[in-house]
Order: sequence, then C-alpha cells, then structure tokens
Amino acid sequence: MTALRSLRLKKHADRRLKAGHLWLYSNEVDTDATPLKAFAPGEQAVVEAANGKPMGVAYVNAHSLICARLVSRDPAMGLDRSLLVHRLNQALALRQRLFDKPFYRLVHGEGDLLPGLIIDRFDDVLVVQLNTAGMQAALEPLLDALDKVLAPRVVVLRNDTGGRRQEGLESHVEVVKGELPEAVLLEENGVRFAVPVLDGQKTGWFYDHRGNRAWLNGLVAGKRVLDLFSYVGGWGVQAAAHGASEVLCVDASARALEQVAENAALNGLHEQVAVGEGDAFEALAALKADGEQFDVVILDPPAFIKKRKDIPAGERAYGKLNREAMRLLGRDGLLLSASCSMHLAPERLVDVVRGAARHQDRHGQILFQGHQGADHPVHPAIPETAYLKALGVRVFRD
Amino acid sequence: MTALRSLRLKKHADRRLKAGHLWLYSNEVDTDATPLKAFAPGEQAVVEAANGKPMGVAYVNAHSLICARLVSRDPAMGLDRSLLVHRLNQALALRQRLFDKPFYRLVHGEGDLLPGLIIDRFDDVLVVQLNTAGMQAALEPLLDALDKVLAPRVVVLRNDTGGRRQEGLESHVEVVKGELPEAVLLEENGVRFAVPVLDGQKTGWFYDHRGNRAWLNGLVAGKRVLDLFSYVGGWGVQAAAHGASEVLCVDASARALEQVAENAALNGLHEQVAVGEGDAFEALAALKADGEQFDVVILDPPAFIKKRKDIPAGERAYGKLNREAMRLLGRDGLLLSASCSMHLAPERLVDVVRGAARHQDRHGQILFQGHQGADHPVHPAIPETAYLKALGVRVFRD
Repeated sequence: MTALRSLRLKKHADRRLKAGHLWLYSNEVDTDATPLKAFAPGEQAVVEAANGKPMGVAYVNAHSLICARLVSRDPAMGLDRSLLVHRLNQALALRQRLFDKPFYRLVHGEGDLLPGLIIDRFDDVLVVQLNTAGMQAALEPLLDALDKVLAPRVVVLRNDTGGRRQEGLESHVEVVKGELPEAVLLEENGVRFAVPVLDGQKTGWFYDHRGNRAWLNGLVAGKRVLDLFSYVGGWGVQAAAHGASEVLCVDASARALEQVAENAALNGLHEQVAVGEGDAFEALAALKADGEQFDVVILDPPAFIKKRKDIPAGERAYGKLNREAMRLLGRDGLLLSASCSMHLAPERLVDVVRGAARHQDRHGQILFQGHQGADHPVHPAIPETAYLKALGVRVFRD
Repeated sequence: MTALRSLRLKKHADRRLKAGHLWLYSNEVDTDATPLKAFAPGEQAVVEAANGKPMGVAYVNAHSLICARLVSRDPAMGLDRSLLVHRLNQALALRQRLFDKPFYRLVHGEGDLLPGLIIDRFDDVLVVQLNTAGMQAALEPLLDALDKVLAPRVVVLRNDTGGRRQEGLESHVEVVKGELPEAVLLEENGVRFAVPVLDGQKTGWFYDHRGNRAWLNGLVAGKRVLDLFSYVGGWGVQAAAHGASEVLCVDASARALEQVAENAALNGLHEQVAVGEGDAFEALAALKADGEQFDVVILDPPAFIKKRKDIPAGERAYGKLNREAMRLLGRDGLLLSASCSMHLAPERLVDVVRGAARHQDRHGQILFQGHQGADHPVHPAIPETAYLKALGVRVFRD
C-alpha cells in the first residue's frame, strides 16, 4: 500500500470510533489541519485523533454527510485485496455456519466491517452493490478477492442505489463477470424462487425476512392468505408451499406478478396462488368492498420513511395501512406487519398495531417480534445497521 | 353477577384505557367520589370516565400501586366463570395453533387479557400463579373454568411470587387438584425435561426462551458450550441434544444441577453434559484462570434489574457478566446474552454487548435478536408485558 495521508480529528471526536463506530461526520474533522476537499472521493487516509494518535484507516468522501468510514483499526492496513480476502473469508465462514445451501447475503456492509458493500449470493451468481465512493474505488481488488474466496461464475453490479446518488456516484447495472443464466434461482425455507437480479428491487431478492417468513410458514396451513406488496412472492408463495389453502399476491408491478406466477409454478403451486395488480391501498378498499376476508394478511411495504423528516407522514401511512389491512381479517386473524424503515423505531410499529386494533375495537396480541436475518448482522455500535422489523399479531374480537 | 359499585376516574384519566391499556393508578381515580379504601382488596367495580360513561369492569386493590386492572370492556361482564371459560378458550385456541404438543404457557396475564394470572401447562399438569388480589378472589371460578376447558389431572398453585407480596397476599404452594406425579415432564424443541414444579424457579420451567433456544440449537453442533445460570439445563441439555460436543452447566443451586444431570440422562446425554456448582462470576474467573475456552457461551441470568431504581447498578452487572463471559470465547465464538429484566431496554443490552466486545478489542456482530415466545403474548398497549431479550452475538478477533 502506498503511504496514506492523514485525516485529523477534532478533540474528543475519536470517542465514537473508540466505542466501535465506523463513521465520521465532516464536523468532527479538523479541516484546518486536514481539509476534506484535499482528498479525492474514495481516497483512503490514516485517521488520527486530535493528539496525533493513529486510529486506523478510513476512506474519505468530502461530498457525503458521512465524510469517512473506517475500514481497519490498524493504521498499516488499508482496504486492499488482502484485507478484502480476509473480510470475505470472515463473512463466508459465518454464512457457512448459518446455512447449508449457498443462498444468502454474503456481505452486509458495516455489519461485516465492509462499509458501503452489499453482496447477495445466489449460488455461483453474486449481486454486488458498491454504495460509497470508497468502495467503488476498491472495485478491482474486490473482484480479485471474490475470485480468490469464491470463484463465482457470474458477478453483477447493481449500482443503481440511492446511496450512490448521495455519494455523487453514477447509476448503472452491469454484468462484470460471466454470463447471466436465463433464470437466477434460490431456495429459501425449502421453497424455490427465480429472481430478476438485473431489474428487480434492490439485488433482486430480500433475504432479510427469511426467519420471519419461516415463523409465519408454521401458521398458515389451511388458511386464506393476502400478501400485499408481494413483489415476486417471497411471503405468498412460501405460505402456499407451507399449506395455505389460497393465497392472493397484490403488487403494483405487473412484472413482479408475472414472476410470482412463475415462482408458484416452479413449486407446483399455481392453483393455490392468485395475483392482483394494483396500488395496495386501492386493493385493500376493493377487497373490503367485495366483502373478502382473510385468515392471514402480510404487510411488507417498501420503506415509508426514508429520511428522519419523513417520520410523521410515514407513521401515518403505516397506521393507515395496518388499519385497512386489519379490516380484512376474520374474527381471529393473524397480521404480519413489517417495516424496513430504519427510522421507524420498533416500539412505534407496536404502537401502529395497537392503534389499528383499537380503532376497530379488536384485541391485538403480539406473538412475534422479528428482525433481519443473521446474514444481515447488526453492528452493535451503529444503530442504522438494524433496520428490519416484523410483528406477528393475533387480532381478534372478544 | 351481583351489581358492582362504580370506580370513578378523574378527567382525562380514561385516555390510557381507551388506547387499549388495562391498568389504573391510584392518582387517576376520583377518590372523593369513589374512595379506593371502600373496596375490599380484589373487589370488582365498573370503571367510569369522569363524565360517568362506563368503560368496563376492573378489579380493585387499594394496597397496590396499580390500583385496578380491567378485566372486560363490557360493563355488564365481570370476572366470573363465564368470562374465564371464554378467555381460557381464546388462550387455548392460540396455543393449539402454535404447538403440536401440550407443553406451553397457557395464560400470560395481561397479554391474554387475564391480568394477574399465569398458567404453565405440562400436559395434564397445570401450574398456576395468582399474582393479584383480584385474581386470587377469582380462584374458585377459575378452577371450575379450567375443569370445563381442559379437565387437568393436577393443578398446582405456585403462589409464592414477588407480585403477591406487593398486593398484600400471603405466600404458599399447594396442590389444589389431583396428585403430583413423581416427575413432571415436558418436551421443548424435541428434547425432554423433568421439572421441579413445587420448588423450582417460578413455575418450574421457562417456556419463554423456546424460540431463542431453537435458534441457538442450530449453531452448536460439534461445539464446546458453557451454560451459565443453567438452572435445570434448558439451554445446555438442548445444546447437547443438538450436537454440542461438550456442555458445562454452571448454577449456584445443587438441586438444579441434580436436575440437569437427570435431564441429560433422560435424553441419553450424560456423557456430553457436565455440571459445576457455584456463583457465576466466581465460576467465570476460575474457568479463565484454568485457561478454559468455549465456542459458545450462554448467559441467561436472573433479572438483575427488578425496579427502575436498580437500572444503573443492574446495567453495570450485565456489563461485567458479558465482559467476563466473552473472555472465555475462542477466536471466533458465539455469545447468547439474555436478559429477562423488563427495565433493561433492548438497545441497552445491545450496548452492553458492544462495550464488552470493545473492551477486549474484539468485533461483535449481532446475528439474532430474540424475544419471548408466542405463548407469552405482548399486549401492545402495555410495554411491561414485553420483558425478554436474547441476543445472539458472534464475537471475533480481526
């Protein structure tokens, strides 16, 4: 590694790093001593406390609110092929302990000490997101490191994330290694899916709900299930595979619903799974008007709260959604209410459910509080790495 | 039901009830209109808002901080045999959906709309706790209702809880129906246990960790496991049954450790499970001094925080325990860190784990955030009904 320049912190600004955090904000940098603008976006630097003590290596981006992210606590170890091989091996070792099949999130950014990097694995197809200028700058050593650790057949860059815009990076999707097969397949909780890794949501699939789906799968046998915001059928097709008598998947995307039908067929479940295209709120109103009732309703909406300032409007939207969904439940029904909004506190989602049940003079019992799966590890010093919530709620009339 | 007297609330004091809560505090009662002292402990009353509107029926205890708990939102429906049969049927229906064997918490107090009542089921043996004067007063109709709904062979009252002291009730343990068999047996996650329902902790068993144990069971094959505060081996014996190569159960109670050995033998695991008697902190120090290392350490201590004022001292104790436990983990180990202290916020336990890892310059990855099982439903308006936390943390050196 070539010698790195220093990034000097203000007094006391090393405290959060010492506590385990990996991020630095621009107001914590002594910009008189080390101007942020002097660094190229993504350039690595040795972080120094105000007294000059080196704290480790970070990559820098003056254009981002988070102006630097620590990649190592060893000032002599930067983000290069060697460190990437080490961290990828650590990440892989964990997943191999957790799962017996090669379908999982392989790297979960800060949670795996690789800030800005997401990799989802579909057997020998890897879908990669580089969400920061610093990780973008490490693309070549990363591809080398992946070859050494996993030798994937196909590597796809899904570099079309919101995070990249904030870092001043352009948006593109590209197959950088190999040739994408006609269908990218995975298995989750014993059920098979084909997923659109090039043009689907995020990397094409949401592994984060695996454990939450497993919980729900145990309670759907013989039930009539509504899966709202179904995307490609992660919840709905699994419910059918676990014995649901009838599943309706609703999504605004015709393309996603085609995939639901294919995924149902892939598991021999085309008779149990129906699809409906449309806006979720309009679908709820139409189903209510038609007098439809369900034993189980699944709400797994996109993030209604993307920024802190959206919290009040977002909480109202979650409230409305949960109220309208509960109206479709029979006398003793089950609601699976999820939120992937990091800014929605877990206790606020409990309150959304409480309010929705009271609004209809029903009782709610929270049976299950689920989070993101173990292949999405939470960094204990970075609350932002914990984003997913799923409540399993029995809703009944007295 | 004989006509009930009224309990009049102060202005706006009905808001929490309307939001779904079941509790009233003495400062919310219009004691000029309806003096609390006029009610016999446990007597039922119709709760009225300040404007006289009836809100439902509650039982009253002037000697308790929580001076009344709502049992019904119908002013004409008090806590009698009929309501108990109805609520027990609701509770049983849920458990029968959740579990295929008759081993579970049948009634979880407020979470099952039966404030002050706990019932754990061990097949045809029920262990009952009446934690309030109001529920104590309903003992006879409760036993009738249990006969109608479940016809248990044996009913044990474990009325030796701290909650009863606060309500001014005496402490006693009594078999009120049938004859206790020599061994009370249960099965959890496929593993069999005999439990001391008369003189063990609480009702004799902790069903609340079932799902958390199931998660850990998937990660212990071939591992060396330390189960601290083991009690009768709920975690440790299950780990052995799921392939742990060696398990050491440590507890301060010789009686509990005898039961660990019996439970290990019951599953043919006496060779894999060893026991050690002693204080947990002393045991940790001794194991460290002996150079012992484990792949997995389980910390499931009793509540270190029983009252709000104990929070600072309790958090320090959790911190020390987690630090000392992590020192026994190998290079890439797994810590299961639990807390049943309702007053320890989930994010504080995350912080305990974060601090412990940093203290030894290790990385922590939170893989799992577990809560109480679905047979311990959380009442969404009563945060106190959510008490259990279990973190699964990978702890590794870089």
